[in-house]
Amino acid sequence: MPTLPAETTRVLGIDPGSRVTGWGVVERREGQLRLIAHGTLRLGDGPVPARLAQIHRGVNSLLSEHEPSAFAIEEAFLGRNVRSMMRLAEARAVAILAAEFATCPIHEVAPALVKKSVTGHGRAGKDVVREAVMRLLDWEPDATPPAYDASDALAISLCVLLRLAAPTALRLPATGIGRASRGRKRWTAADLAKHQAWVSNPEEGS
Amino acid sequence: MPTLPAETTRVLGIDPGSRVTGWGVVERREGQLRLIAHGTLRLGDGPVPARLAQIHRGVNSLLSEHEPSAFAIEEAFLGRNVRSMMRLAEARAVAILAAEFATCPIHEVAPALVKKSVTGHGRAGKDVVREAVMRLLDWEPDATPPAYDASDALAISLCVLLRLAAPTALRLPATGIGRASRGRKRWTAADLAKHQAWVSNPEEGS
Repeated sequence: MPTLPAETTRVLGIDPGSRVTGWGVVERREGQLRLIAHGTLRLGDGPVPARLAQIHRGVNSLLSEHEPSAFAIEEAFLGRNVRSMMRLAEARAVAILAAEFATCPIHEVAPALVKKSVTGHGRAGKDVVREAVMRLLDWEPDATPPAYDASDALAISLCVLLRLAAPTALRLPATGIGRASRGRKRWTAADLAKHQAWVSNPEEGS
Repeated sequence: MPTLPAETTRVLGIDPGSRVTGWGVVERREGQLRLIAHGTLRLGDGPVPARLAQIHRGVNSLLSEHEPSAFAIEEAFLGRNVRSMMRLAEARAVAILAAEFATCPIHEVAPALVKKSVTGHGRAGKDVVREAVMRLLDWEPDATPPAYDASDALAISLCVLLRLAAPTALRLPATGIGRASRGRKRWTAADLAKHQAWVSNPEEGS
Protein backbone atom coordinates (compact mmCIF):
# COMPACT_ATOMS: atom_id res chain seq x y z
CA MET A 1 0.00 0.00 0.00
CA PRO A 2 0.98 3.66 0.46
CA THR A 3 4.60 4.69 0.38
CA LEU A 4 4.09 7.90 2.31
CA PRO A 5 6.87 9.41 4.43
CA ALA A 6 6.84 8.31 8.06
CA GLU A 7 4.47 10.14 10.39
CA THR A 8 2.26 10.98 7.43
CA THR A 9 -1.42 10.29 7.33
CA ARG A 10 -3.12 10.93 4.03
CA VAL A 11 -6.88 10.65 3.78
CA LEU A 12 -9.07 10.41 0.70
CA GLY A 13 -12.55 11.70 1.56
CA ILE A 14 -15.49 10.95 -0.70
CA ASP A 15 -18.84 12.73 -0.74
CA PRO A 16 -20.87 10.37 -2.88
CA GLY A 17 -23.81 11.42 -4.99
CA SER A 18 -25.56 9.80 -7.90
CA ARG A 19 -25.03 12.90 -10.11
CA VAL A 20 -21.84 14.41 -8.70
CA THR A 21 -19.36 12.76 -6.33
CA GLY A 22 -16.96 15.09 -4.55
CA TRP A 23 -13.50 14.03 -3.42
CA GLY A 24 -10.63 15.52 -1.48
CA VAL A 25 -7.19 14.35 -0.39
CA VAL A 26 -5.60 15.89 2.69
CA GLU A 27 -2.48 14.85 4.51
CA ARG A 28 -1.03 15.55 7.91
CA ARG A 29 2.72 15.47 8.31
CA GLU A 30 4.67 16.77 11.29
CA GLY A 31 1.52 18.27 12.70
CA GLN A 32 0.81 20.24 9.53
CA LEU A 33 -2.33 19.78 7.45
CA ARG A 34 -1.85 19.99 3.71
CA LEU A 35 -4.24 19.93 0.78
CA ILE A 36 -3.09 17.40 -1.81
CA ALA A 37 -5.90 17.50 -4.36
CA HIS A 38 -9.66 17.82 -4.67
CA GLY A 39 -12.33 17.69 -7.32
CA THR A 40 -15.62 16.22 -8.44
CA LEU A 41 -16.65 13.27 -10.56
CA ARG A 42 -19.50 14.37 -12.83
CA LEU A 43 -21.62 11.33 -13.61
CA GLY A 44 -23.96 12.56 -16.31
CA ASP A 45 -27.44 11.30 -17.02
CA GLY A 46 -26.76 7.69 -17.97
CA PRO A 47 -28.47 4.66 -16.43
CA VAL A 48 -27.82 4.01 -12.74
CA PRO A 49 -25.54 0.97 -13.26
CA ALA A 50 -23.30 3.01 -15.58
CA ARG A 51 -23.07 5.80 -13.02
CA LEU A 52 -22.24 3.32 -10.26
CA ALA A 53 -19.45 1.96 -12.45
CA GLN A 54 -18.15 5.51 -12.99
CA ILE A 55 -18.05 6.14 -9.24
CA HIS A 56 -16.29 2.85 -8.55
CA ARG A 57 -13.73 3.39 -11.31
CA GLY A 58 -13.23 7.02 -10.32
CA VAL A 59 -12.55 6.18 -6.66
CA ASN A 60 -10.30 3.39 -7.77
CA SER A 61 -8.22 5.82 -9.86
CA LEU A 62 -8.00 8.27 -6.95
CA LEU A 63 -6.77 5.51 -4.65
CA SER A 64 -4.08 4.51 -7.19
CA GLU A 65 -3.01 8.05 -7.86
CA HIS A 66 -2.89 9.42 -4.32
CA GLU A 67 -2.19 6.25 -2.30
CA PRO A 68 -4.00 7.45 0.82
CA SER A 69 -3.40 5.68 4.13
CA ALA A 70 -7.11 5.98 4.94
CA PHE A 71 -10.42 6.28 3.13
CA ALA A 72 -13.21 8.39 4.64
CA ILE A 73 -16.92 8.58 3.89
CA GLU A 74 -20.04 9.65 5.73
CA GLU A 75 -22.24 7.03 7.32
CA ALA A 76 -25.50 6.27 5.57
CA PHE A 77 -28.12 8.58 6.97
CA LEU A 78 -31.83 9.03 6.74
CA GLY A 79 -32.91 11.56 4.17
CA ARG A 80 -36.28 13.10 3.63
CA ASN A 81 -36.62 11.48 0.24
CA VAL A 82 -36.42 7.69 0.32
CA ARG A 83 -35.55 7.33 -3.36
CA SER A 84 -32.57 9.68 -3.15
CA MET A 85 -31.54 7.96 0.09
CA MET A 86 -31.40 4.64 -1.79
CA ARG A 87 -29.43 6.19 -4.66
CA LEU A 88 -27.00 7.56 -2.10
CA ALA A 89 -26.65 4.15 -0.42
CA GLU A 90 -25.79 2.64 -3.79
CA ALA A 91 -23.19 5.31 -4.56
CA ARG A 92 -21.66 4.86 -1.08
CA ALA A 93 -21.50 1.08 -1.53
CA VAL A 94 -19.54 1.14 -4.78
CA ALA A 95 -17.14 3.79 -3.44
CA ILE A 96 -16.54 1.72 -0.29
CA LEU A 97 -16.03 -1.35 -2.46
CA ALA A 98 -13.13 0.37 -4.24
CA ALA A 99 -11.44 1.14 -0.89
CA GLU A 100 -12.03 -2.42 0.30
CA PHE A 101 -10.45 -3.86 -2.84
CA ALA A 102 -7.48 -1.51 -2.38
CA THR A 103 -7.20 -2.70 1.28
CA CYS A 104 -7.32 0.94 2.33
CA PRO A 105 -8.67 1.32 5.90
CA ILE A 106 -12.24 2.63 5.77
CA HIS A 107 -13.54 5.24 8.20
CA GLU A 108 -17.25 5.96 8.28
CA VAL A 109 -18.21 9.10 10.15
CA ALA A 110 -21.54 10.62 11.05
CA PRO A 111 -22.42 13.70 8.97
CA ALA A 112 -22.96 15.80 12.11
CA LEU A 113 -19.52 14.83 13.40
CA VAL A 114 -17.92 15.98 10.14
CA LYS A 115 -19.56 19.38 10.42
CA LYS A 116 -18.77 19.63 14.12
CA SER A 117 -15.12 18.69 13.64
CA VAL A 118 -14.39 21.42 11.15
CA THR A 119 -16.80 24.18 12.18
CA GLY A 120 -17.77 23.39 15.77
CA HIS A 121 -21.40 23.04 14.66
CA GLY A 122 -23.14 19.77 13.86
CA ARG A 123 -25.62 21.56 11.65
CA ALA A 124 -23.35 24.00 9.87
CA GLY A 125 -24.37 24.91 6.31
CA LYS A 126 -22.30 24.13 3.22
CA ASP A 127 -20.89 27.65 3.06
CA VAL A 128 -19.71 27.55 6.69
CA VAL A 129 -18.16 24.11 6.11
CA ARG A 130 -16.36 25.38 3.02
CA GLU A 131 -15.07 28.42 4.85
CA ALA A 132 -13.73 26.25 7.68
CA VAL A 133 -12.13 23.81 5.24
CA MET A 134 -10.41 26.67 3.40
CA ARG A 135 -9.10 28.10 6.67
CA LEU A 136 -7.85 24.74 7.97
CA LEU A 137 -6.05 24.13 4.69
CA ASP A 138 -4.56 27.65 4.38
CA TRP A 139 -6.36 28.21 1.11
CA GLU A 140 -4.67 30.96 -0.85
CA PRO A 141 -6.84 34.09 -0.59
CA ASP A 142 -7.02 34.54 -4.36
CA ALA A 143 -7.39 30.84 -5.28
CA THR A 144 -10.76 29.59 -6.54
CA PRO A 145 -12.79 28.12 -3.66
CA PRO A 146 -13.58 24.42 -3.97
CA ALA A 147 -16.97 23.29 -5.29
CA TYR A 148 -19.34 22.43 -2.43
CA ASP A 149 -19.17 18.70 -3.26
CA ALA A 150 -15.38 18.89 -3.02
CA SER A 151 -15.32 20.98 0.16
CA ASP A 152 -17.72 18.50 1.78
CA ALA A 153 -15.33 15.71 0.82
CA LEU A 154 -12.36 17.68 2.20
CA ALA A 155 -14.31 18.19 5.44
CA ILE A 156 -14.77 14.40 5.70
CA SER A 157 -11.01 13.91 5.21
CA LEU A 158 -10.21 16.60 7.78
CA CYS A 159 -12.64 15.10 10.29
CA VAL A 160 -10.90 11.73 10.06
CA LEU A 161 -7.42 13.30 10.24
CA LEU A 162 -8.40 15.24 13.36
CA ARG A 163 -10.01 12.16 14.89
CA LEU A 164 -6.97 10.00 14.16
CA ALA A 165 -4.80 12.65 15.82
CA ALA A 166 -7.18 13.02 18.76
CA PRO A 167 -9.09 9.78 18.97
CA THR A 168 -11.04 10.62 22.09
CA ALA A 169 -14.69 11.44 21.68
CA LEU A 170 -15.34 14.64 19.80
CA ARG A 171 -17.72 16.46 22.09
CA LEU A 172 -17.47 19.87 20.51
CA PRO A 173 -19.35 22.82 21.98
CA ALA A 174 -21.32 25.14 19.72
CA THR A 175 -18.71 27.89 19.96
CA GLY A 176 -15.92 26.04 18.23
CA ILE A 177 -12.75 27.33 16.69
CA GLY A 178 -14.58 27.38 13.38
CA ARG A 179 -16.65 30.27 14.67
CA ALA A 180 -14.13 31.95 16.93
CA SER A 181 -11.48 32.58 14.30
CA ARG A 182 -13.39 33.95 11.35
CA GLY A 183 -10.59 36.19 10.15
CA ARG A 184 -8.25 34.62 7.59
CA LYS A 185 -4.87 33.71 9.00
CA ARG A 186 -2.32 31.05 8.22
CA TRP A 187 -2.48 28.09 10.53
CA THR A 188 0.79 27.10 12.09
CA ALA A 189 1.68 23.72 13.57
CA ALA A 190 1.11 25.35 16.97
CA ASP A 191 -2.39 26.45 15.97
CA LEU A 192 -3.16 22.95 14.80
CA ALA A 193 -1.86 21.42 18.03
CA LYS A 194 -4.05 23.86 19.94
CA HIS A 195 -7.05 22.97 17.82
CA GLN A 196 -6.39 19.28 18.35
CA ALA A 197 -6.00 19.73 22.09
CA TRP A 198 -9.29 21.56 22.07
CA VAL A 199 -10.89 18.89 19.88
CA SER A 200 -9.82 16.19 22.32
CA ASN A 201 -10.93 18.13 25.34
CA PRO A 202 -13.34 20.91 24.40
CA GLU A 203 -14.14 21.75 28.02
CA GLU A 204 -10.71 23.29 28.53
CA GLY A 205 -8.85 25.98 26.66
CA SER A 206 -11.67 27.26 24.46
CA MET B 1 -20.15 -12.12 -24.17
CA PRO B 2 -22.08 -15.41 -23.85
CA THR B 3 -21.48 -18.18 -26.32
CA LEU B 4 -24.88 -19.79 -25.81
CA PRO B 5 -26.57 -21.77 -28.57
CA ALA B 6 -28.89 -19.71 -30.77
CA GLU B 7 -32.40 -19.11 -29.45
CA THR B 8 -31.14 -19.52 -25.92
CA THR B 9 -31.73 -17.01 -23.20
CA ARG B 10 -29.94 -17.65 -19.95
CA VAL B 11 -30.65 -15.49 -16.94
CA LEU B 12 -28.69 -15.13 -13.71
CA GLY B 13 -31.06 -13.97 -10.97
CA ILE B 14 -29.70 -12.54 -7.74
CA ASP B 15 -31.56 -12.11 -4.47
CA PRO B 16 -29.18 -9.89 -2.56
CA GLY B 17 -28.91 -9.81 1.19
CA SER B 18 -26.24 -8.58 3.52
CA ARG B 19 -26.01 -11.97 5.29
CA VAL B 20 -27.01 -14.40 2.54
CA THR B 21 -27.30 -13.70 -1.17
CA GLY B 22 -29.27 -16.22 -3.21
CA TRP B 23 -28.61 -16.89 -6.89
CA GLY B 24 -30.14 -18.96 -9.64
CA VAL B 25 -29.40 -19.56 -13.32
CA VAL B 26 -32.22 -20.61 -15.63
CA GLU B 27 -32.23 -20.90 -19.38
CA ARG B 28 -34.89 -21.11 -22.02
CA ARG B 29 -34.09 -22.96 -25.20
CA GLU B 30 -36.59 -24.02 -27.84
CA GLY B 31 -39.42 -23.06 -25.58
CA GLN B 32 -38.14 -25.23 -22.72
CA LEU B 33 -37.16 -23.84 -19.33
CA ARG B 34 -34.15 -25.47 -17.73
CA LEU B 35 -32.48 -25.10 -14.36
CA ILE B 36 -28.73 -24.61 -14.82
CA ALA B 37 -27.57 -24.00 -11.24
CA HIS B 38 -28.55 -22.31 -8.01
CA GLY B 39 -27.14 -21.63 -4.58
CA THR B 40 -26.41 -19.10 -1.90
CA LEU B 41 -23.43 -16.96 -1.00
CA ARG B 42 -23.04 -16.99 2.79
CA LEU B 43 -21.40 -13.77 3.84
CA GLY B 44 -20.60 -14.34 7.48
CA ASP B 45 -20.36 -11.72 10.18
CA GLY B 46 -17.45 -9.62 8.92
CA PRO B 47 -17.54 -5.85 8.47
CA VAL B 48 -19.93 -4.50 5.85
CA PRO B 49 -17.22 -3.55 3.30
CA ALA B 50 -15.84 -7.10 3.39
CA ARG B 51 -19.32 -8.53 2.83
CA LEU B 52 -19.93 -6.16 -0.07
CA ALA B 53 -16.68 -7.33 -1.61
CA GLN B 54 -17.78 -10.96 -1.19
CA ILE B 55 -21.06 -10.25 -2.97
CA HIS B 56 -19.34 -8.43 -5.82
CA ARG B 57 -16.71 -11.14 -6.25
CA GLY B 58 -19.32 -13.90 -5.95
CA VAL B 59 -21.57 -12.41 -8.62
CA ASN B 60 -18.55 -11.82 -10.78
CA SER B 61 -17.60 -15.51 -10.54
CA LEU B 62 -21.16 -16.58 -11.38
CA LEU B 63 -21.15 -14.34 -14.45
CA SER B 64 -17.85 -15.84 -15.61
CA GLU B 65 -18.90 -19.39 -14.95
CA HIS B 66 -22.41 -19.36 -16.39
CA GLU B 67 -22.12 -16.62 -19.03
CA PRO B 68 -25.76 -15.54 -18.78
CA SER B 69 -27.27 -13.42 -21.54
CA ALA B 70 -29.13 -11.37 -18.93
CA PHE B 71 -28.79 -10.40 -15.27
CA ALA B 72 -31.91 -10.03 -13.14
CA ILE B 73 -32.48 -8.42 -9.76
CA GLU B 74 -35.38 -6.96 -7.87
CA GLU B 75 -35.88 -3.21 -7.83
CA ALA B 76 -35.02 -1.43 -4.61
CA PHE B 77 -38.12 -1.34 -2.48
CA LEU B 78 -39.25 0.24 0.72
CA GLY B 79 -38.85 -1.99 3.73
CA ARG B 80 -40.21 -1.53 7.19
CA ASN B 81 -36.74 -1.22 8.65
CA VAL B 82 -34.72 1.64 7.20
CA ARG B 83 -31.36 0.25 8.27
CA SER B 84 -31.93 -3.12 6.60
CA MET B 85 -33.29 -1.28 3.55
CA MET B 86 -29.97 0.60 3.29
CA ARG B 87 -27.97 -2.61 3.72
CA LEU B 88 -30.04 -4.15 0.94
CA ALA B 89 -29.45 -1.15 -1.33
CA GLU B 90 -25.70 -1.55 -0.79
CA ALA B 91 -25.80 -5.28 -1.57
CA ARG B 92 -27.87 -4.60 -4.71
CA ALA B 93 -25.44 -1.92 -5.87
CA VAL B 94 -22.33 -4.10 -5.75
CA ALA B 95 -24.15 -7.00 -7.45
CA ILE B 96 -25.36 -4.68 -10.23
CA LEU B 97 -21.84 -3.30 -10.54
CA ALA B 98 -20.53 -6.78 -11.35
CA ALA B 99 -23.11 -7.18 -14.14
CA GLU B 100 -22.32 -3.71 -15.48
CA PHE B 101 -18.61 -4.50 -15.60
CA ALA B 102 -19.40 -7.78 -17.41
CA THR B 103 -21.58 -5.80 -19.88
CA CYS B 104 -24.40 -8.21 -19.11
CA PRO B 105 -27.83 -6.59 -19.73
CA ILE B 106 -29.44 -5.72 -16.41
CA HIS B 107 -33.13 -6.26 -15.74
CA GLU B 108 -34.64 -4.76 -12.61
CA VAL B 109 -38.09 -6.08 -11.76
CA ALA B 110 -40.57 -5.15 -9.07
CA PRO B 111 -40.82 -7.73 -6.28
CA ALA B 112 -44.58 -8.05 -6.73
CA LEU B 113 -44.11 -8.74 -10.44
CA VAL B 114 -41.68 -11.57 -9.65
CA LYS B 115 -44.20 -13.22 -7.35
CA LYS B 116 -47.05 -12.64 -9.80
CA SER B 117 -45.12 -14.04 -12.74
CA VAL B 118 -44.40 -17.38 -11.12
CA THR B 119 -47.37 -17.86 -8.80
CA GLY B 120 -50.10 -15.55 -10.13
CA HIS B 121 -50.03 -13.68 -6.81
CA GLY B 122 -48.16 -10.45 -6.16
CA ARG B 123 -48.06 -11.20 -2.45
CA ALA B 124 -47.30 -14.91 -2.51
CA GLY B 125 -45.27 -16.23 0.41
CA LYS B 126 -41.80 -17.76 0.10
CA ASP B 127 -43.16 -21.30 0.25
CA VAL B 128 -45.65 -20.69 -2.58
CA VAL B 129 -42.91 -19.06 -4.66
CA ARG B 130 -40.61 -22.02 -4.08
CA GLU B 131 -43.32 -24.48 -5.00
CA ALA B 132 -44.04 -22.60 -8.24
CA VAL B 133 -40.34 -22.38 -9.09
CA MET B 134 -39.91 -26.11 -8.55
CA ARG B 135 -42.90 -26.86 -10.76
CA LEU B 136 -41.79 -24.51 -13.55
CA LEU B 137 -38.32 -26.08 -13.49
CA ASP B 138 -39.51 -29.72 -13.34
CA TRP B 139 -37.75 -30.24 -10.05
CA GLU B 140 -37.19 -33.93 -9.45
CA PRO B 141 -39.69 -35.09 -6.82
CA ASP B 142 -36.99 -36.57 -4.61
CA ALA B 143 -34.39 -33.81 -5.10
CA THR B 144 -33.67 -31.43 -2.21
CA PRO B 145 -35.76 -28.28 -2.56
CA PRO B 146 -33.75 -25.07 -3.03
CA ALA B 147 -33.08 -22.78 -0.06
CA TYR B 148 -35.56 -19.90 0.06
CA ASP B 149 -32.87 -17.39 -0.90
CA ALA B 150 -32.06 -19.51 -3.96
CA SER B 151 -35.70 -20.11 -4.93
CA ASP B 152 -36.35 -16.35 -4.69
CA ALA B 153 -33.41 -15.81 -7.03
CA LEU B 154 -34.71 -18.49 -9.41
CA ALA B 155 -38.12 -16.77 -9.36
CA ILE B 156 -36.42 -13.51 -10.41
CA SER B 157 -34.69 -15.32 -13.30
CA LEU B 158 -37.95 -16.98 -14.33
CA CYS B 159 -39.82 -13.69 -14.19
CA VAL B 160 -37.36 -12.10 -16.59
CA LEU B 161 -37.35 -15.13 -18.91
CA LEU B 162 -41.15 -15.10 -19.06
CA ARG B 163 -41.18 -11.34 -19.61
CA LEU B 164 -38.57 -11.56 -22.38
CA ALA B 165 -40.66 -14.26 -24.03
CA ALA B 166 -43.90 -12.34 -23.53
CA PRO B 167 -42.91 -8.71 -23.20
CA THR B 168 -46.44 -7.34 -22.97
CA ALA B 169 -47.64 -6.17 -19.61
CA LEU B 170 -48.00 -8.92 -17.05
CA ARG B 171 -51.48 -8.35 -15.75
CA LEU B 172 -51.96 -11.61 -13.95
CA PRO B 173 -55.22 -12.40 -12.19
CA ALA B 174 -55.20 -13.76 -8.66
CA THR B 175 -56.11 -17.25 -9.84
CA GLY B 176 -52.95 -17.85 -11.81
CA ILE B 177 -51.42 -21.05 -13.02
CA GLY B 178 -49.41 -21.18 -9.82
CA ARG B 179 -52.58 -21.82 -7.90
CA ALA B 180 -54.57 -23.77 -10.48
CA SER B 181 -52.07 -26.58 -11.01
CA ARG B 182 -50.93 -27.56 -7.56
CA GLY B 183 -50.35 -31.20 -8.48
CA ARG B 184 -46.78 -32.03 -9.56
CA LYS B 185 -46.46 -32.76 -13.27
CA ARG B 186 -43.69 -32.39 -15.79
CA TRP B 187 -43.98 -29.29 -17.88
CA THR B 188 -43.77 -29.81 -21.60
CA ALA B 189 -42.92 -27.19 -24.23
CA ALA B 190 -46.65 -27.07 -24.97
CA ASP B 191 -47.42 -26.33 -21.30
CA LEU B 192 -44.86 -23.56 -21.31
CA ALA B 193 -46.27 -22.07 -24.51
CA LYS B 194 -49.72 -22.17 -22.91
CA HIS B 195 -48.39 -20.53 -19.75
CA GLN B 196 -46.70 -17.82 -21.80
CA ALA B 197 -49.81 -17.23 -23.88
CA TRP B 198 -51.71 -16.89 -20.63
CA VAL B 199 -49.03 -14.64 -19.15
CA SER B 200 -49.21 -12.33 -22.15
CA ASN B 201 -52.99 -12.29 -22.18
CA PRO B 202 -54.40 -13.45 -18.86
CA GLU B 203 -57.98 -12.54 -19.78
CA GLU B 204 -58.21 -15.44 -22.22
CA GLY B 205 -57.59 -19.11 -21.76
CA SER B 206 -57.36 -19.26 -17.99
